[in-house]
Amino acid sequence: MMTHHDAVSVIRTKRDGHVLSGAQIDWVIDAYTRGHVADEQMSALAMAILLRGMNRDEISRWTAAMIASGERMDFSGLRRPTVDKHSTGGVGDKITLPLAPLVAACGAAVPQLSGRGLGHTGGTLDKMEAIPGWRAALSTGELLSQLDSVGATICAAGAGLAPADKKLYALRDVTGTVESIALIASSIMSKKIAEGTSALVLDVKCGSGAFMKDAEDARELARTMVDLGNDAGVRTVALLTDMDTPLGLTAGNALEVRESVEVLAGGGPPDVVELTLELAREMLSAVGMSDIDPADVLADGRAMDVWRRMIEAQGGDPGAELPVAQDTEVVVAPRSGVLSELDAMAVGLAAWRLGAGRQRQGEPVQAGAGVEWHASVGDRVERGQKIFTLHTDTPERIPAALAALDGGWEIGESGERRPLVMARVG
Amino acid sequence: MMTHHDAVSVIRTKRDGHVLSGAQIDWVIDAYTRGHVADEQMSALAMAILLRGMNRDEISRWTAAMIASGERMDFSGLRRPTVDKHSTGGVGDKITLPLAPLVAACGAAVPQLSGRGLGHTGGTLDKMEAIPGWRAALSTGELLSQLDSVGATICAAGAGLAPADKKLYALRDVTGTVESIALIASSIMSKKIAEGTSALVLDVKCGSGAFMKDAEDARELARTMVDLGNDAGVRTVALLTDMDTPLGLTAGNALEVRESVEVLAGGGPPDVVELTLELAREMLSAVGMSDIDPADVLADGRAMDVWRRMIEAQGGDPGAELPVAQDTEVVVAPRSGVLSELDAMAVGLAAWRLGAGRQRQGEPVQAGAGVEWHASVGDRVERGQKIFTLHTDTPERIPAALAALDGGWEIGESGERRPLVMARVG
Repeated sequence: MMTHHDAVSVIRTKRDGHVLSGAQIDWVIDAYTRGHVADEQMSALAMAILLRGMNRDEISRWTAAMIASGERMDFSGLRRPTVDKHSTGGVGDKITLPLAPLVAACGAAVPQLSGRGLGHTGGTLDKMEAIPGWRAALSTGELLSQLDSVGATICAAGAGLAPADKKLYALRDVTGTVESIALIASSIMSKKIAEGTSALVLDVKCGSGAFMKDAEDARELARTMVDLGNDAGVRTVALLTDMDTPLGLTAGNALEVRESVEVLAGGGPPDVVELTLELAREMLSAVGMSDIDPADVLADGRAMDVWRRMIEAQGGDPGAELPVAQDTEVVVAPRSGVLSELDAMAVGLAAWRLGAGRQRQGEPVQAGAGVEWHASVGDRVERGQKIFTLHTDTPERIPAALAALDGGWEIGESGERRPLVMARVG
Repeated sequence: MMTHHDAVSVIRTKRDGHVLSGAQIDWVIDAYTRGHVADEQMSALAMAILLRGMNRDEISRWTAAMIASGERMDFSGLRRPTVDKHSTGGVGDKITLPLAPLVAACGAAVPQLSGRGLGHTGGTLDKMEAIPGWRAALSTGELLSQLDSVGATICAAGAGLAPADKKLYALRDVTGTVESIALIASSIMSKKIAEGTSALVLDVKCGSGAFMKDAEDARELARTMVDLGNDAGVRTVALLTDMDTPLGLTAGNALEVRESVEVLAGGGPPDVVELTLELAREMLSAVGMSDIDPADVLADGRAMDVWRRMIEAQGGDPGAELPVAQDTEVVVAPRSGVLSELDAMAVGLAAWRLGAGRQRQGEPVQAGAGVEWHASVGDRVERGQKIFTLHTDTPERIPAALAALDGGWEIGESGERRPLVMARVG
């Protein structure tokens, strides 16, 4: 009876526009984690938070309570400083793949705990699992040992970090309560602070293919997360980056691994290279290593060496052939001109429908599926030239993917992408 | 997957302040009734409705969908016109008990489907069950037969009427989503319209002991329900009545039966008599019988005759001794003066804590428990005179009841209750 009365009183407090006390927040997160507050109570509270908001103190306490729901990791025994990167998720966003080994090659330790995809944005672990033999799960001992020897990991977050967040995230997904800056910020930051990194660079995506369509919302999310990190002793900065247009030239699991390897080999699409280097500089600066130029470390092959060792340490074969989808479909330019628009959401949905993403948690994804585009915004294209290649093992999904692309790209007189890095919040 | 996506899209529509379509409302109520929309999804939607509101068309469709979730009753075969009364719930509100037999004695049929209490306001069925032998459950056949022969019933609503409302009401109770005018109005009116009454008089309580503390909210609730009823072909009017102060001189199950019998015998507290007659006049007027003066029918004993027959038809003994609580505690006036305040919420909480009400659905209540007060607001009292008698079978609860009363009454220089009937909405 206590439980029922307390949950209702916490819900009513926020519903009526008041500030939740620290004790209310601590109690509700703990009771929800233990199953004493029911899902239907937490979803009502989440909706009240979404519509009423939380102030900085409330968000900070909410985050701390989610951290306290589980264990914390400790990297203080490593000989290198730790620095991590988190992206709020975008289409074609494979930056983690070249970035983690690059920053490790510069001398920092990068404990990149990552997630799987849900919906139109791909998941880093899904991409890495396209590499034959590679496994996402590391024990804490293996993680520490690999950070010490190789300097970088890309691996699954253990179930012990912020279990309240895992439960709440799954609930928000089915109750229309995802799009709250307070809840998004506390979800991301609780995992990153619990992880124990000493510094963190956030890539907050903004545009059609991102959670945050609007630059003001993206800036508020960035500011909220930067404050949460710094308040918790994690040196945190954020870049707001463009996600109206997808990154690079591919969206899909094996397709994006291939593109990442091209970047590590000194090539790859210029926007992927640019963002990788910008984020690497921020990460190095956050741990006092701004004297090192990551462009040199990328150019001379040291980042590629770390990539190979990182793959091998997790059972993968960096030299193996990557999976290829069974079927392809080509879309050509109906006329000559300049690619004036390429919409990130359209490309992301098409890749998702081709099988690169999942509709429900736990579903398998197709390693080879996805979308390749053969021109970037601003490129000259000729009538009949290939614009897209769709890849899938399930060709019956091609019409749905074509429908997603329809209206999402345009050939006009001219076109220019907005600056990749739109702002810095630090 | 359809289900999940649809529930989220309905939630998002209301969350973002848009109007729900008729198809969305029909789908979500039906799917929730069948268990295809989960409790955590419906509670998020209920919170969004509470904070964003629904317009008249949405509330009307929501009500219709709840009616369509179950069966409808049909009183059109009766020889008398049917008219029902519903109160939004108050402390000491025993009006249904004398009113139903009174209006039946005037010639109408009163199918008073009632509920049990939860929280500080008592339930009509709990009160009636203090009468030895009386049973609340009637089959539809028994109900029709009793309306035909006796003219009045007070009985439990069958599980078949508006099952969506039953499920939603229990959910709202534990998720802080009770206090929405749209949801309260549609909950009450779905049951009353499904019941099949041809006319309905609403007693919308307003004040400290009511759901609606504020007269403006009470008026909006009344207006919303009157519109819903009339739109559905049920002739509906509402009285806004005072609930800053409790009705009559008792709150508790057997205590209120005793007071009701006093009214039927031609005595009883003046406010209970006044409200009973006001509501009877509205009910008779709503079915074209305003030529009959219920005061005559109360005075000459015909209402008491119907009361006795109504009790007997449901297995009760109208002449039996009513249960009496094992323990009593008296509170006396600390000084002489005029009772200037008597707070309905304080009295209701005290009666609840003494055992007259329940904390969870399904709990038993004490038939004899409750609060008697020996003076009304405006009455002269002398130092040492009894002000309250508390009744309970569980004397360990007396301190909690005294604490509830503390500060809820005052002896001053003068005092006057505000008018019992504050407004009429028709």
